[in-house]
Amino acid sequence: MEIKDFFPMWDNLEEKEKNILERKSVLKAAKSGDILYDSDDSCSGLILVASGQLRAFYMSEGGREITLYRLLEGDICILKANCIINSLQFDINISAEKDTVFYVLPPESYKQLMESSLEISRYTNEIMAGRMSDIVWLMDQIMWQSFDKRLAGFLLEESALDDSDTLHITHETVANHMGTAREVVTRMLKYFRSEGLIELSRGSIKIVNFDALRRLSA
Amino acid sequence: MEIKDFFPMWDNLEEKEKNILERKSVLKAAKSGDILYDSDDSCSGLILVASGQLRAFYMSEGGREITLYRLLEGDICILKANCIINSLQFDINISAEKDTVFYVLPPESYKQLMESSLEISRYTNEIMAGRMSDIVWLMDQIMWQSFDKRLAGFLLEESALDDSDTLHITHETVANHMGTAREVVTRMLKYFRSEGLIELSRGSIKIVNFDALRRLSA
Repeated sequence: MEIKDFFPMWDNLEEKEKNILERKSVLKAAKSGDILYDSDDSCSGLILVASGQLRAFYMSEGGREITLYRLLEGDICILKANCIINSLQFDINISAEKDTVFYVLPPESYKQLMESSLEISRYTNEIMAGRMSDIVWLMDQIMWQSFDKRLAGFLLEESALDDSDTLHITHETVANHMGTAREVVTRMLKYFRSEGLIELSRGSIKIVNFDALRRLSA
Repeated sequence: MEIKDFFPMWDNLEEKEKNILERKSVLKAAKSGDILYDSDDSCSGLILVASGQLRAFYMSEGGREITLYRLLEGDICILKANCIINSLQFDINISAEKDTVFYVLPPESYKQLMESSLEISRYTNEIMAGRMSDIVWLMDQIMWQSFDKRLAGFLLEESALDDSDTLHITHETVANHMGTAREVVTRMLKYFRSEGLIELSRGSIKIVNFDALRRLSA
């Protein structure tokens, strides 16, 4: 993916703005498992995913995690730009879940664009509104959906992202995605197994009854 | 409050933009307890609170509520502008908690400003980032803070908003603010009473030990 492919309104940008985006963006690569940014990197700039998969997660003061959303090919992350959007009063962490190639537009360049381009500012509004919608949906799930339903939905989503019926994932990792304790995950996975929905082996979960899992998550 | 008092960058706006804001905004009044907007009013425009107190809350499909944030004098709500910021994929409800005077800038006028004014677009980014920060903080509280701590914090916040040690509020209303069931609230309030933190009578809660409540919430 080229920089211009990330911006649906590319043709409306001024030449100067296109130049900043194309010349100042730095192409980077990360290996699956790498931590790209932690809570201390509060102003890293704009992150644009060219290929692979990133995980944006929130960490509590006590060190507990919950996945806020995934960044896939074509996605832009603006939540590491606290120094440009000053009212972003929380920090997220970003790790690579697959080998990932991404661009980073440094804060000073992003700031320059936000100060001159109405198009970029409005697009930032849309991206932020999309992320906020994800987070409100997540809060709804946490508060009012039973854990079996959430876990069924999580397994199906992971299976779709990996395009596989077998997930190579530990119970600890599932717990970190869902913001809960490992024991809670293990207990529910064993229940799913007893119901014939999944098979469990060391470090992997195999979905054997997709239909039943979908009914449960619906 | 006049319209210009809501916009710190008023002097940087163009005359045409100032005119839209001043001439198209409609002044309205609501009584304490009124529901101003429900989930069906997805595009009401920009809401600017001149005096009083509004409550923005989310309602689950099952009809359960949680308070997302309060809007006080000088606050602007952009989350009822789904037709301008298309990626806002959730609906909130707004009710008046005190007699409230507010301006509404209709969607078509807000849209016009968003299409022409970089200042307004950037300010929208800041407001949205602030709301998102509130919601992430709330999610953190829900997931990882014990309920006694959250309830202590809620009682202190209400006391500060009402400038009174006695809250005229039912257990049901507290439950709706906090996104939980009435029984859970009643049980914890009775525990607080047994610990000498509060006194309970029909329809009201009186804080008698502020220090202990503050220690609990810290």
